[in-house]
Amino acid sequence: MATTRHPRLEIEYCTQCRWLLRAAWTAQELLTTFRTELGEVALIPGTGGVFEVRLDQERLWSRAEDGGFPDLAALKRAVRDRVAPDRSLGHSEGRRE
Amino acid sequence: MATTRHPRLEIEYCTQCRWLLRAAWTAQELLTTFRTELGEVALIPGTGGVFEVRLDQERLWSRAEDGGFPDLAALKRAVRDRVAPDRSLGHSEGRRE
Repeated sequence: MATTRHPRLEIEYCTQCRWLLRAAWTAQELLTTFRTELGEVALIPGTGGVFEVRLDQERLWSRAEDGGFPDLAALKRAVRDRVAPDRSLGHSEGRRE
Repeated sequence: MATTRHPRLEIEYCTQCRWLLRAAWTAQELLTTFRTELGEVALIPGTGGVFEVRLDQERLWSRAEDGGFPDLAALKRAVRDRVAPDRSLGHSEGRRE
């Protein structure tokens, strides 16, 4: 049985659409911002136009549902809210309301 | 329970040594070469100088045991031997003996 580390973030990307580089970039951004709060980030090759980000099985972004690709600052806020709710993300906090 | 895809390749890297970029580069190389043969590649942040590559729990490379970093062509041959034994890796086949 594989021993996965938690929180486990998954990025499933379409190999036919050549989205590995975008998926790997997203993984590196999240692993840089959440250096100690993420257990692992799994890059999962898929097909059929999939681009999906899941955190411990919760879907944070789905190209099929949400369209396009996730805005990185918004994705970082979604991850922060779940793995490090007290942390400020500085520039990624988004525009003041 | 997390549903991991197999074969699962893990790259555990030391965040203190800032080896994320090397780990992500290695992941992208392996996911490019083995587009359909790998179920997932997990990037796992660690500490204490770790740099280790495991395929379904089998250790293919360990900085502690082997010293330094894996030669990519050699690593690709090790992965190929396990997930796609019949495949030729072209340039990565290594120098003719």
